[in-house]
Amino acid sequence: MPYPETAEGFLIHDQKNWTDFKKGEFKLKPFEDRDIDVAIDACGVCGSDVHTINGGWGDAPMPICVGHEVIGKAIKVGKDVKTVKVGDRVGVGAQIGADLTCKNCKADQENYCPNAIDTYGAPYPDGTISMGGYSSHIRAHEYFTFKIPDNIPTDLAAPMLCAGLTTYSPLVRLGAGPGKKVGVVGLGGLGHFGILWAAALGAEVYAISHSPHKKDDALKLGAKHFISTASADWAKEIPFTLDFILNCADATHKFKLSDYFSTLKVNGTFHNVGFPDEPLPTINAQDFAPNGCYIGASHIGNRPEMIAMFELASKQNVKSWVETIDISEAGCKEAVERVYKNDVKFRFTLVNYDKVFGKRS
Amino acid sequence: MPYPETAEGFLIHDQKNWTDFKKGEFKLKPFEDRDIDVAIDACGVCGSDVHTINGGWGDAPMPICVGHEVIGKAIKVGKDVKTVKVGDRVGVGAQIGADLTCKNCKADQENYCPNAIDTYGAPYPDGTISMGGYSSHIRAHEYFTFKIPDNIPTDLAAPMLCAGLTTYSPLVRLGAGPGKKVGVVGLGGLGHFGILWAAALGAEVYAISHSPHKKDDALKLGAKHFISTASADWAKEIPFTLDFILNCADATHKFKLSDYFSTLKVNGTFHNVGFPDEPLPTINAQDFAPNGCYIGASHIGNRPEMIAMFELASKQNVKSWVETIDISEAGCKEAVERVYKNDVKFRFTLVNYDKVFGKRS
Repeated sequence: MPYPETAEGFLIHDQKNWTDFKKGEFKLKPFEDRDIDVAIDACGVCGSDVHTINGGWGDAPMPICVGHEVIGKAIKVGKDVKTVKVGDRVGVGAQIGADLTCKNCKADQENYCPNAIDTYGAPYPDGTISMGGYSSHIRAHEYFTFKIPDNIPTDLAAPMLCAGLTTYSPLVRLGAGPGKKVGVVGLGGLGHFGILWAAALGAEVYAISHSPHKKDDALKLGAKHFISTASADWAKEIPFTLDFILNCADATHKFKLSDYFSTLKVNGTFHNVGFPDEPLPTINAQDFAPNGCYIGASHIGNRPEMIAMFELASKQNVKSWVETIDISEAGCKEAVERVYKNDVKFRFTLVNYDKVFGKRS
Repeated sequence: MPYPETAEGFLIHDQKNWTDFKKGEFKLKPFEDRDIDVAIDACGVCGSDVHTINGGWGDAPMPICVGHEVIGKAIKVGKDVKTVKVGDRVGVGAQIGADLTCKNCKADQENYCPNAIDTYGAPYPDGTISMGGYSSHIRAHEYFTFKIPDNIPTDLAAPMLCAGLTTYSPLVRLGAGPGKKVGVVGLGGLGHFGILWAAALGAEVYAISHSPHKKDDALKLGAKHFISTASADWAKEIPFTLDFILNCADATHKFKLSDYFSTLKVNGTFHNVGFPDEPLPTINAQDFAPNGCYIGASHIGNRPEMIAMFELASKQNVKSWVETIDISEAGCKEAVERVYKNDVKFRFTLVNYDKVFGKRS
């Protein structure tokens, strides 16, 4: 059964062999009236893909096709779809479903809907498991499908759909803008977007990294200051300074959190967007006391924020730093291995889908 | 050397014998132009007093006289004092000094001044160790000395100076008021103020307690709802409901935090005001993800908040629930032992100072 019953993709069959991608077929959910079928042209490679296939975040249904930074062409739209037409270039991020009726959804907090459906590895109501964008096609509800502004190239737009939104949403909610001092910790896929967006929003950005050699890149991305945590006294340079910190690091369990907290203004926030495999370091309530600060995290962002983010990127010509890899069994393997090792500046986009899946529209 | 060089108080000499109060003399700091000498009439007994004398918070300078909910009469005022005159009934809380020149102080955040001086156990610039209110006199800078509204009795006003402010400040900063749903966890000295203030500010209060028998008291204090955490499914009654939680419990290390977090609205806050001896339970960044929530804490409050709190108490006739104990070696011992065991409803005030210290004005 080929498309439209199924799609083809590069699948992982066992978390023990998490780089062993095999091309295979999987079932698409039943097509509904607000669904859109997308012939995929590119997909970003997210840290979540690695945490899922290697078991860092626990079990996942197998086989699985990951990828939730998906760009392609709409080739079929349901009769009730209003926001997308056949032929549009569209994107799908890390969320592909929600009930759209609960109080969170009604308050534009669908990313916190208790019935949210992740773009891969999650069951639809009919039992179909959602599958991601290392594949020929994706079937997505229009609420989770976004037109991409013409002036953003496909390979640069792809990682904005998860890494971009995941950093943009908390920056905006925490008030990044002119007059605000924002720390961005960890200069990887997420962190490079953190700097790009915070600077584009007009904030004064402090890039904070344990790798002094990343200074040039941080400044090129738009940081005004670079703070190396290699020195034991690094935090003493900027006491009570930052309105908030966006922590994009994957090694937070190794942090001396009180140092980071000490750089925050009174009632400032240490906001996490990465979800490492390890717990946070031990915290005493007293650790918050020197400035009455907070720690928390967020999960992606909502539809209005996704749309606003692409508008910002389009108007200010914000460019993600992307390396492309042709999609294939070997290409997927290389991508996830190098993401695992942080060997990418700063995000991979899988491209050249026609070569393996053929022309699909 | 009697007053004004020294004061008399009930002192602890050794954290191993933390209930063994002995009446003794201690040196007062040099009198300065904005200082006020207070002849003490009453002092609340705070959990901090216990954590300090029994070593729960680590070492403390010995001997020590604790007590930072101090009420008395101004008997001497420095030549530059503007806000208090001799004869005024005044209070001193948990902070007695700050540099008043740093950016935090200038922003009305003197409770986060890096040079803040605690009311007891902290060194003044000249080396004198500050001593608290289980004593005959206290010498305090006018910025940390507050006139008490006439219609609030001394024994009820005393615990407002620390427990009251510690709960009032975060409630106000987090927006407690009409239309807001506020959870107050832990119905002890702090928690009873949490309910009183949140209700007085117009919020809808959810008292959350592991002790079902506290329901009647919670409702009398002004809670609209009582949630008993004795049932394993307690949090499922109120998903995504509370704007924030004020956690006043001392046993937070035993909490399943994800249950508490699940009762918060999107981007809600779990705010701690108690500083237990034990660390918080282990937290994964993912634990914040279901609603993008935060955890943090605060340290007392600032002068404008203290003044606003007493105005609210005065106008709305807010009454702390207090048991009084006559100050003496035995009285201090009984008070700290019973606070340690949570055997008080809900706060002790030490009274009848004239009996042991004589008339001092």
